[in-house]
Amino acid sequence: MLIQPGKVLANINSPEDVKKLNQTQLIELCNDLRQFIVDNVSVYGGHFGASLGVVELTVALHYVFNTPYDQLIWDVGHQAYGHKILTGRKDKFYTNRTYRGISGFPKISESEYDAFGVGHSSTSISAALGMAIASKYKNDKSRQHIAVIGDGAMTGGLAFEAMNHAGVSNSNLLIILNDNCMSIDPNVGALKDYLTDITTSQSYNRLKNDVWKVLGKMSKFGKSAQEIASKLESSLKSLILNQSNLFEALNLRYFGPVDGHDVDHLVHVLDDLKKIPGPKILHCITTKGKGYALAEKDQTKWHAPGKFDKVTGVIRKRDLEAPQPPKYQNVFGETLLELALQNDKIMGITPAMPSGSSMNIMMKALPERAFDVGIAEQHAVTFSAGLAAQGLIPFCNIYSTFMQRAYDQVIHDVAIQKLPVIFCLDRAGLVGADGPTHHGAYDISYMRCIPNLVIAAPMNESELRNMMYTAQLPEGAPFVIRYPRGQGVLVNWETPFEKLEVGRGRKINSGEDVAILTIGHIGNYAQEAVRELKKSDICPAHYDMRFVKPLDEALLHQVFSEFRKIVTVEDGCLPGGFGSAVVEFMTDHNYAAQVVRLGIPDKLIEHGEPEQLHRECGFDAKSIREAVIKLLEPELAKP
Amino acid sequence: MLIQPGKVLANINSPEDVKKLNQTQLIELCNDLRQFIVDNVSVYGGHFGASLGVVELTVALHYVFNTPYDQLIWDVGHQAYGHKILTGRKDKFYTNRTYRGISGFPKISESEYDAFGVGHSSTSISAALGMAIASKYKNDKSRQHIAVIGDGAMTGGLAFEAMNHAGVSNSNLLIILNDNCMSIDPNVGALKDYLTDITTSQSYNRLKNDVWKVLGKMSKFGKSAQEIASKLESSLKSLILNQSNLFEALNLRYFGPVDGHDVDHLVHVLDDLKKIPGPKILHCITTKGKGYALAEKDQTKWHAPGKFDKVTGVIRKRDLEAPQPPKYQNVFGETLLELALQNDKIMGITPAMPSGSSMNIMMKALPERAFDVGIAEQHAVTFSAGLAAQGLIPFCNIYSTFMQRAYDQVIHDVAIQKLPVIFCLDRAGLVGADGPTHHGAYDISYMRCIPNLVIAAPMNESELRNMMYTAQLPEGAPFVIRYPRGQGVLVNWETPFEKLEVGRGRKINSGEDVAILTIGHIGNYAQEAVRELKKSDICPAHYDMRFVKPLDEALLHQVFSEFRKIVTVEDGCLPGGFGSAVVEFMTDHNYAAQVVRLGIPDKLIEHGEPEQLHRECGFDAKSIREAVIKLLEPELAKP
Repeated sequence: MLIQPGKVLANINSPEDVKKLNQTQLIELCNDLRQFIVDNVSVYGGHFGASLGVVELTVALHYVFNTPYDQLIWDVGHQAYGHKILTGRKDKFYTNRTYRGISGFPKISESEYDAFGVGHSSTSISAALGMAIASKYKNDKSRQHIAVIGDGAMTGGLAFEAMNHAGVSNSNLLIILNDNCMSIDPNVGALKDYLTDITTSQSYNRLKNDVWKVLGKMSKFGKSAQEIASKLESSLKSLILNQSNLFEALNLRYFGPVDGHDVDHLVHVLDDLKKIPGPKILHCITTKGKGYALAEKDQTKWHAPGKFDKVTGVIRKRDLEAPQPPKYQNVFGETLLELALQNDKIMGITPAMPSGSSMNIMMKALPERAFDVGIAEQHAVTFSAGLAAQGLIPFCNIYSTFMQRAYDQVIHDVAIQKLPVIFCLDRAGLVGADGPTHHGAYDISYMRCIPNLVIAAPMNESELRNMMYTAQLPEGAPFVIRYPRGQGVLVNWETPFEKLEVGRGRKINSGEDVAILTIGHIGNYAQEAVRELKKSDICPAHYDMRFVKPLDEALLHQVFSEFRKIVTVEDGCLPGGFGSAVVEFMTDHNYAAQVVRLGIPDKLIEHGEPEQLHRECGFDAKSIREAVIKLLEPELAKP
Repeated sequence: MLIQPGKVLANINSPEDVKKLNQTQLIELCNDLRQFIVDNVSVYGGHFGASLGVVELTVALHYVFNTPYDQLIWDVGHQAYGHKILTGRKDKFYTNRTYRGISGFPKISESEYDAFGVGHSSTSISAALGMAIASKYKNDKSRQHIAVIGDGAMTGGLAFEAMNHAGVSNSNLLIILNDNCMSIDPNVGALKDYLTDITTSQSYNRLKNDVWKVLGKMSKFGKSAQEIASKLESSLKSLILNQSNLFEALNLRYFGPVDGHDVDHLVHVLDDLKKIPGPKILHCITTKGKGYALAEKDQTKWHAPGKFDKVTGVIRKRDLEAPQPPKYQNVFGETLLELALQNDKIMGITPAMPSGSSMNIMMKALPERAFDVGIAEQHAVTFSAGLAAQGLIPFCNIYSTFMQRAYDQVIHDVAIQKLPVIFCLDRAGLVGADGPTHHGAYDISYMRCIPNLVIAAPMNESELRNMMYTAQLPEGAPFVIRYPRGQGVLVNWETPFEKLEVGRGRKINSGEDVAILTIGHIGNYAQEAVRELKKSDICPAHYDMRFVKPLDEALLHQVFSEFRKIVTVEDGCLPGGFGSAVVEFMTDHNYAAQVVRLGIPDKLIEHGEPEQLHRECGFDAKSIREAVIKLLEPELAKP
């Protein structure tokens, strides 16, 4: 079904067409754009609320600025659907986030209008500043560089680092603070309170008015008062204009707040700002989900609702007869609460992903023991280390891809000090539709090289529970548990807790000729492969290693003594990964075996359904089966 | 030579003893402490200016607070010498930073007074907040948690993330901003200007006085004016007290600025602050190097001057007859300028290490093309990506250990977009006296798993020059060049530029029975080993691989076809490192050889001279020689 755009949007093929519209048509374009996004996302899925919130801003930006010459960077980028639709991707938009379709995020390789690829938050100011300084160096004075960043992304330390530099840069940079009080969940922290404070004018704006009014009245008290007033005025001006605002303190000229849904006013404001040189910030108030009542009301639910009936607002669920296994994230969330109720040392920490990680379950039940620290992965880890230094046991849940943001903190603040922080890496492995910026591809490699860490991955929900249980037992170590996005395999997942021996794998089934060694959930693929292979009378052994670190050396000695052909399988990158650890072991202990390593190859994997990507990378059940058969070929060829 | 402490310090064995002193004695203690630091560092070396700058603060903190029950965290930690001396480590202080001696940084395992291990900057607020929230949870209301952080460290994004959380935490946290306008080099950025502005009172403090004065006078104008004044006062109070300050905007109560060298006043202020609950910040103005005139005057030079004559201030240099090879960092600095003069696309970026990296050479010669962005590694990388997106060629120089801070930015902003940013990782490998927080042990592993990167390491100065030259040629890729701390091997290092083939290693010498594969500077150790082995008629081949990624597969095919015994050597961690890449290749291509991997084992390596540590880890020349001999033992045993 091809979605038809409204009358005005139908004629927009590039920002040039936007510039031809009159004031009334601009408003109609906003309506059409909003409708087109609703129509598309309801049918095809994708991010929803964020793009609806910036419809007017998107139209105004492309109306006022000379994109792609002027460079526009959307922080995070899941709010850039409108931008994509206006910049030549309207007809392809139905392929959004699908295998070989357009990306859900801006991407340099996709369009010249995408000035910088995004996905993770808080990068836009740094990147735009780099571009602005490049333009300044090239003496390209008219070029504009615009970073659109949410109030949630603004809490990330990178944004602050960039503002600290921008404030002394004298470059042509416009930061648009898209303030909707939300990241995926409601935004948190002191900055949020501060922004609300500015916006509601309880002190800043009212004061500004009061002061000017008072100073006006003072003149009637004669010369002496006038002198006082004049002296006071100059002091106040320097205070209010230069210092009273957090952003002005960083030497960014602050404008706003303005209504981000008044396209007419936005056009005028942006037009004015274009003429003001130097680094500046426009504070723009928007509503996430704007124009779709249900999305405005429950913004977290409608961040990325999946497909839905746009009239009734009913979110479509797969209608399955049999009960389904839970998502790993829910197993984490429920289990964490269960453990926390038993062990009062347990604390929960999430950087802005309470619903995505299911930490919200504990936050609701034990609010004083579970913390959403905002988009601040570095702080989440060092804060956890501080808790652990006091004898508490923090479960710090961070998506694998976002853990890259706190890498030094894992090494420097946790591992070196052997503090028992338990890292739960959700969305480990290929995540699917979010694509290369979000794949949790590297964590095994980048964690495996750190001393003192335990690294585990569960093959199913029960294993996840037991790993969490084991990690929080006394004499704990820094502990990493990685698990994938999506469903597990057990309908009855609430199994009793059982202590696992750290660094101990398990044999799933005996076999001959070939041993398959797996880590984590993809062990189920191996099981599927084994079932199929048995039909052809091929019976490989299968071991679920459970721990990447420490490796189960006893088990490996046994495997390498028995088998000369080995397949390793992981949902992680091959260089330095689990398979690499196995061949290091083999070499260090002087075994000689033929080892085939299956996993994510050393290249970028684009977006698509996880199953499509697993197939592409060659570690789905079929690929495992083929690898075993290929390894056996000389034997199979025997008479 | 044991350094004798002054009369008052001689009797101080713990903070309990400090608490017994009277006002005059406290001042004497400060003098003794300062003298003891000068005496020690002049003889034994170490960090200098930072500890001198916080002598009074150190004494006041231990006088007022109940350490170790109250928890004191020194950000970065190289200013904590006074703290160590007062907390039972006076007699061991001469072993500071030496092999098996005390650490140059606070360390949990060294003393109960070291509440949290440090080394990298900007961690203290997060850690102290974690501890404060833990105390709150334990209902331990009287415990104090103090983070002492410099204005340089405050520019790191992690500090901002922590303040954003602290501001809404209602925890017992005191942040002491030690403002000396310096990190190692002078601090940069808008925050620095802002702090200077507060300090010099040009607007904030003067205004505060002016306003109260004016409001006082207004009352004489009668009731109407009084009403206005009263209204204005309440508005102003809310502005000045709650909003006019960047820290107050984040809901931290701001106090100061105070003179950080007035121990008496500090004692009173800290005593007052102890009674004020909630998160707060004390802005303390200090002079780096305070009390040692030369160090006050040239703070960068005296950050860690090495040994010196404390009377004349002459810094001792090794007095060597022959001309010496340069430091790698200087080869980088000089070569960068040389290349930048030839290629106007080249830009230089350093996060607060202009002198340490020798980027200051380019900053001086081409100030508009080289940037110190402050302690802000994340921003340094994404800013570089922004420059590269505009067609420029940024050389982003970050110490290997600090690159851990910008790991996500390397993946997300550079590698995924294939932007030609050239990362120069100084201090790669074991760095020596700074110890485990600073060893550049992990970069090969954490970089090798990232697609699209080229990773190279020079064996000598000439190679470094050629790698830098090659990296900046058109059609560039993201390029990583790692090199160690300290000297190279070539006295005549200014060799003409030569393009290297990316992914191409070289044979240093032919040989038989064993092939030694090395990466980077430690290739020289292998050469030394080969020279020694030849004396015993053992002649291994030696290959300098030059590139970890892409590996020279042609060369490796040749090596594995010719040799059944291979030694790999790297100044990097073994899990996932260079040797791991070699055994991955071997396995993937079905070779069977005996491979011995030498490098940093999977454990923490403490501080010491690099040579001592290389020996301990087993990859100095002697260890390489022994490894070859051991591999050959069966052959050698043959008749």
